[in-house]
Amino acid sequence: MKQINIGILGCGIVGTGVAKLLMEKQAMLESRIGIPLNLKYVADLDTLTDRGITFKQGVFISDANKAINDPDINIIVELIGGKTFAKEFILRALQNGKHVVTANKALIASFGNDIVRTAVENGVDFAFEASVGGCMPVIKSIRESLVANRIDSITGILNGTCNYILTKISQEGCPFDIALKEAQAKGYAEADPFLDVEGHDSAHKLAILAALAYGMEINLENIHVEGISRITPMDIEFAREFGYTIKLLAISKNHTDKVEARVHPAMIPITHPLAHVNGSMNAVTIDADATGQTMLYGAGAGMMPTASAVVSDIADIARNIMAGSNTRVPILGSPKSNIRKIPILPVTEISTCYYIRLEAADHPGVLSKITGILGKRGISIQSVHQKGRRFNGPVPVVMITHNAMEKEVQAALNEISSLDAIPEKPVVIRIEESISS
Amino acid sequence: MKQINIGILGCGIVGTGVAKLLMEKQAMLESRIGIPLNLKYVADLDTLTDRGITFKQGVFISDANKAINDPDINIIVELIGGKTFAKEFILRALQNGKHVVTANKALIASFGNDIVRTAVENGVDFAFEASVGGCMPVIKSIRESLVANRIDSITGILNGTCNYILTKISQEGCPFDIALKEAQAKGYAEADPFLDVEGHDSAHKLAILAALAYGMEINLENIHVEGISRITPMDIEFAREFGYTIKLLAISKNHTDKVEARVHPAMIPITHPLAHVNGSMNAVTIDADATGQTMLYGAGAGMMPTASAVVSDIADIARNIMAGSNTRVPILGSPKSNIRKIPILPVTEISTCYYIRLEAADHPGVLSKITGILGKRGISIQSVHQKGRRFNGPVPVVMITHNAMEKEVQAALNEISSLDAIPEKPVVIRIEESISS
Repeated sequence: MKQINIGILGCGIVGTGVAKLLMEKQAMLESRIGIPLNLKYVADLDTLTDRGITFKQGVFISDANKAINDPDINIIVELIGGKTFAKEFILRALQNGKHVVTANKALIASFGNDIVRTAVENGVDFAFEASVGGCMPVIKSIRESLVANRIDSITGILNGTCNYILTKISQEGCPFDIALKEAQAKGYAEADPFLDVEGHDSAHKLAILAALAYGMEINLENIHVEGISRITPMDIEFAREFGYTIKLLAISKNHTDKVEARVHPAMIPITHPLAHVNGSMNAVTIDADATGQTMLYGAGAGMMPTASAVVSDIADIARNIMAGSNTRVPILGSPKSNIRKIPILPVTEISTCYYIRLEAADHPGVLSKITGILGKRGISIQSVHQKGRRFNGPVPVVMITHNAMEKEVQAALNEISSLDAIPEKPVVIRIEESISS
Repeated sequence: MKQINIGILGCGIVGTGVAKLLMEKQAMLESRIGIPLNLKYVADLDTLTDRGITFKQGVFISDANKAINDPDINIIVELIGGKTFAKEFILRALQNGKHVVTANKALIASFGNDIVRTAVENGVDFAFEASVGGCMPVIKSIRESLVANRIDSITGILNGTCNYILTKISQEGCPFDIALKEAQAKGYAEADPFLDVEGHDSAHKLAILAALAYGMEINLENIHVEGISRITPMDIEFAREFGYTIKLLAISKNHTDKVEARVHPAMIPITHPLAHVNGSMNAVTIDADATGQTMLYGAGAGMMPTASAVVSDIADIARNIMAGSNTRVPILGSPKSNIRKIPILPVTEISTCYYIRLEAADHPGVLSKITGILGKRGISIQSVHQKGRRFNGPVPVVMITHNAMEKEVQAALNEISSLDAIPEKPVVIRIEESISS
């Protein structure tokens, strides 16, 4: 074999970055990997945009099938995104005996089990380091570096847009809408920020990490998801007073025959390593039985960081091809036969501590009613704080609970909401004490 | 091949941990790797200590040569430590065609080039993930995940003992001696703490990381090393006032034809990700051209975290053996033919900002003399702080410089020290602004 032939499908931001790395760093990559990586095709329907790269004659094509069907192509790199063409192209490439690299978390989270099965049936590699945490090597770490560990939990800041917005609210006290607009202006948030700010992008990534960590099939459907659009500067300020910061976390915990998997804003102690991950950066802590807590931190998105992760997958596969050692590491960390269907615990069954903020009409007896409702459901209170006192309206009351069952908390809050003295639905933010280092 | 046969040399703390993982997690490891890992021998001269493990008949031996010379042994795991027997055993194992895993940073830092050459000549793997940063996958990250990057700098907290002591001084204001005694009592520091607190252990690790990061031969000799024994609570308190924290850092920077490599206490801004790495934890930030800044964080020492890293190397090699893909990744990241001898920049040639604290007799004109000496050598001052005023003795003066050449700072300080008004040698701590995120 003289070289590894690569076809990139999709020449958007990340595709352009990968093409750049393969072309500009060809000599360095060949020296490190031991064989040239030849970018044979870059396929994109948009043939007009100037991407700042000069491709050799015949490299840039508009028909992805030309790459997928070329017998000389060893590796297909899918960077189209979305779940329509991308899925079809990946499956066909695998069936054609091509190894596939992708950064498409939405696709893997929804159809990963089919894709993994197809890759295994065809004896080829399917790699997706860039799908979670950009350049952080979280997938390699779980599959290879933690091979001797039972992973107990994973907690991640996996969406740079949300982290940027929360950092901005936290540092400048501006409301969510303003912070979002600034994130959009700076290119950190999409024009349609729904997938990001409502937590779905983080859930896609969590579905992938949980499968790898616990040897389970990918299961996006049952992950509980809440976004950050209801977080206010006031809650962040209260959090700070209690020694916490608010982050959008993707949390999963291993209960052996069940897995906790949820995405929501959470308060974490400022002593936690994730508390200082600011701006658009991503980070993930992994708690495992032999290592204890480890953390990875890096740019979770962006052209070159993501491209770096894609090329690391290409290099791994190139090394496998040279050694004839494809499928050297099982795609999900364990061989297909050992991957179990593990149910995800309904969020009502989790237990954690809670921050509850409500507006209560300031007349005697309200607090006693509220604490009575909580007490009846076994929810014990760590502290209550009444902030200021207004004579013409409700005052904010903040309560921090001890560890309590989510379903009891939800039921209690429904009951509290129905009180005449509580004009608005209480704000509830989970507190993750147990992940403190 | 039915199984991978492993011989551990040295059954101290880490050796015991590795034996435990291999025995207690045999089924899980076999499932993930696809072949059983069989612990055939554990060799140690101390046959009396109860290690809390029951070995099968014939596994525990006192003669390491039995393992090294057994034709069935595939992987030798050297966990004796030190540079005498360990070196001899490793070289002989490699010559016998065994793959070798070790955690022995002192040995690699001093004799790594010979060992790598011997491994390459014999076509076997030599792996040492556990030698730097315990369970953090820093070596795998540099060799594999960052394959498409030019690494610009590496900055690490690589010694848990020092970080524990500095955290303690910082949080409790106790002097160095007391903090060291507590570290010893808690088992974080050796009875002879010299290698740790004087920075040599960090230098061993930095020599390894620099070689991997920049494609250079391992070069311990020319690394500048200072320890933490002169750090006082007063300096930590001043650092805090200026928005810094003090850490023992292992720093290397890539200047293409020269490399900066130095270990010393440094002030870093509290906004830097390394500033919040406390207690005995380790962390390393890597700045690279495609990824930007990434960080790894985890337990840098201890039985099970270190054992986890050793077993990840064993698993990698087992996968290579199964696929016939030994030496799949070059030992130093690039093939031997591309490893260059790159000189390390003398510390006098570096430039950075400086914190200078001196005790000055409080009489008019002293400050003007001092700033005159600094100015003459092109050292410009960001700020000067005179702390308190004593009538019967010297007062502490703290100066923060702008970026300045180390050799000019040293020369200026020599001149300042010779002034009558300066009774004691000034305290100098480098400030690493440039590594701020």
